[in-house]
Amino acid sequence: MADPAPDRDDMDEALMGLDPVRIAAILAAVDAGDTKRLTDLMAPLHAADIADLLEQVSPSERRSLLQLWSGGIDGEILSEIDDSIREEVIEFLPRDVLADAVRQLETDDVVDILEDLEQPQQDMILNALPDVDRVAVQAAMAFPEGSAGRLMQREVVIAPEHWSVGEAIDFLRAADWLPDQFYHVILVDPRMKPQGYVTLGRLLSSKRDVRLRDIAEDSFRTIEVTEQEADVAYIFNQYHLISCPVVDADGRLVGVITIDDAMNVLDEEHEEDILRLAGVNDDSNVSDGPFATARRRLPWLVINLFTASLSAMVIAQFEGTIAALVILAALMPIVASTGGIAGTQSLAVSVRALATRDLTAQNARRVVVRELGAGALNGLALALILGLAGFVIFGDHRLGIVLGLAMICNQVVAALGGVLVPLTLSRMGLDPALASGTFVTTLTDVMGFLAFLGFATMLLL
Amino acid sequence: MADPAPDRDDMDEALMGLDPVRIAAILAAVDAGDTKRLTDLMAPLHAADIADLLEQVSPSERRSLLQLWSGGIDGEILSEIDDSIREEVIEFLPRDVLADAVRQLETDDVVDILEDLEQPQQDMILNALPDVDRVAVQAAMAFPEGSAGRLMQREVVIAPEHWSVGEAIDFLRAADWLPDQFYHVILVDPRMKPQGYVTLGRLLSSKRDVRLRDIAEDSFRTIEVTEQEADVAYIFNQYHLISCPVVDADGRLVGVITIDDAMNVLDEEHEEDILRLAGVNDDSNVSDGPFATARRRLPWLVINLFTASLSAMVIAQFEGTIAALVILAALMPIVASTGGIAGTQSLAVSVRALATRDLTAQNARRVVVRELGAGALNGLALALILGLAGFVIFGDHRLGIVLGLAMICNQVVAALGGVLVPLTLSRMGLDPALASGTFVTTLTDVMGFLAFLGFATMLLL
Repeated sequence: MADPAPDRDDMDEALMGLDPVRIAAILAAVDAGDTKRLTDLMAPLHAADIADLLEQVSPSERRSLLQLWSGGIDGEILSEIDDSIREEVIEFLPRDVLADAVRQLETDDVVDILEDLEQPQQDMILNALPDVDRVAVQAAMAFPEGSAGRLMQREVVIAPEHWSVGEAIDFLRAADWLPDQFYHVILVDPRMKPQGYVTLGRLLSSKRDVRLRDIAEDSFRTIEVTEQEADVAYIFNQYHLISCPVVDADGRLVGVITIDDAMNVLDEEHEEDILRLAGVNDDSNVSDGPFATARRRLPWLVINLFTASLSAMVIAQFEGTIAALVILAALMPIVASTGGIAGTQSLAVSVRALATRDLTAQNARRVVVRELGAGALNGLALALILGLAGFVIFGDHRLGIVLGLAMICNQVVAALGGVLVPLTLSRMGLDPALASGTFVTTLTDVMGFLAFLGFATMLLL
Repeated sequence: MADPAPDRDDMDEALMGLDPVRIAAILAAVDAGDTKRLTDLMAPLHAADIADLLEQVSPSERRSLLQLWSGGIDGEILSEIDDSIREEVIEFLPRDVLADAVRQLETDDVVDILEDLEQPQQDMILNALPDVDRVAVQAAMAFPEGSAGRLMQREVVIAPEHWSVGEAIDFLRAADWLPDQFYHVILVDPRMKPQGYVTLGRLLSSKRDVRLRDIAEDSFRTIEVTEQEADVAYIFNQYHLISCPVVDADGRLVGVITIDDAMNVLDEEHEEDILRLAGVNDDSNVSDGPFATARRRLPWLVINLFTASLSAMVIAQFEGTIAALVILAALMPIVASTGGIAGTQSLAVSVRALATRDLTAQNARRVVVRELGAGALNGLALALILGLAGFVIFGDHRLGIVLGLAMICNQVVAALGGVLVPLTLSRMGLDPALASGTFVTTLTDVMGFLAFLGFATMLLL
């Protein structure tokens, strides 16, 4: 095996990510208790990759690694690791390492870490901060969870709108407190209300005597501090923002949100959608053990047990029909299952369209009519295929008709349910992805069995 | 109704998005054929919102709006509207409006527009471009679809690494060709290989005689021009990049990708995941009519018709059992349906973990074992509930045992299927979300019916 120990020359490559060879070498160093080799191997890794590594190894490997290397944990790593193992990691850190780590961070990252910790750990971290940062963090924590106030950083770069480019450049050059990352100078009026912003590129390429207000960007918007983070992510994505000033109820500047935070929220919102649609508690994580995994999934399984009992009760009403013609028991899941798929399709499209605001009050009626039409069309197509197959295989045209009619009914119900359930949840102010899957498949199961056995009772007995 | 016509004072608010009052006023103006009022109403809207408006209205409203307002379409709107209606919009545009529109765009946006157009429209747009841009666009189109080469813009801001801050600032100040948005100066060696980058903030706040290489960012990476766009989005999200240089096979700088494009790709990848998991062709759009919608969903429905027939065949093997005890027909969907939910849960978690690279070769074995454990645990819990209910309701402990045993088997199969199917697809180089849903629910249906009716035959007859 090639020696994976990094030297300066291959750092670039190492930075590109975690490779299996390096992980194997790291775990070997952990096994051997070789702190020096471990430190060498970890050194070139990006904080985000170190965080991934800690999540991906087994709990016992994680403990051994932290025992040998807890001094290596810095603020950036702490802010990258997933909530699910952060508490565990923090417990391993010597007080001084933890204090150093959190002091390196911007206030928004400290807030992100504090949110998911218990009170004693929160206090420990708050006490490690310099006074001015502690006050800023506590102020941010006073905003509701998931609001723009929690997401923003308080370090802002501002200039009066009447300044010239030269004045702004001299001011920036003299400042020693600039944030790590900033992309705009925000123009404010004397009451600290943002009036526009100038990109650093424009600032750099404009003449010294040009007024800042004359080179401000055309399109400018602010976000209220109480705005939901999902809406913040939408605004960044919709309007291609890089950073956006955050204002209080009086319109005064209180902070700024940058696109990397918005991108992170967008990614989390997506995770929430995809997991909630499937009926999984969205705190689930790859580092969970079997018990935590099972517990996170059990609630919807139990609920499904009850909703599935509805189907069973429907079928039980037709025991006489099934007893007379047992083949119906074999055929009935086809109608229900195809309805389930159609409902899931309609549901996924609708949940996604609601998230991207392509489905609005404006076009809801038209989308519902479209779903109705699409359901009827696919119902017809599937009815033809299944009806013909039923006729050919069983030589009974009435069975073909029963299958076809049931299919059409269930496809229409599926398409409508897939759009109406999330629309209704959304109107009620709930997450349209929440529980939609269970509602819709219950609907298509019940309707599938009812239609099939109902038509069979009418036409075949 | 308040007059929604905008004046300069409420532009800020109008820029925040499309409100129903404005949409109603726009459609009224379209109905009345009042071009002037329509132009006034459209003026304050952001290009992204105009694009959304065009997608959300009905096809006939869209046609009328474009007839009255085609002159208002500019490059930015053209690049914001969805592929599904772009061709239609372009057909409405007078040649000179179209030419003006595409000339305003950066090359990466022109490429994005061209990708989905037919040859004649592509040629029309290429011919409207100045020679230098046309060559750049054609060079980008030579890269494979979905690669970094298609995504990047060719306008880059570079400086030799030995320059000082003063030299760089003077150079930028003299340049008149700077891109609209840029956040870094890329440092290159004499062979045009990127060596690092300096943020504009650092540049502005450093002294004139400081060397650029001394204020370069610690963490620096490049993307190869052939990289897949999904990987590009992952790299931006993982390492919190704002922009990233793109290099050719020799490591020479050929362009730069900015985070807004990466965020867009991330969002599209999300859409693909959520729709593919549900078995929907991912080109589906809210502006589709019922026929297009039906056609995009029919393929997986037909496939499901066949996979559902497998379940029917399994059940048919047990016709004797069902004839002897018809209640089994009513109970069997409970086991199958709860298995379907469990499979969907495991599947959603796995597909998401593969997308975020939390599930890797490194921990695949541990995740599979965890799923097995979680499936067994939930199987036991559900078996207890369902088994007891079966015993209490039907007064037959053997029926309870059959329900419980079948539930345990199917929960284990569901949990394993949910992780093994996407892992296998991923190993084969296929999208793990593709068709996974159909595979997994077929598996849980077949296993659910087989286990339940099998145990029933053994224990009850």
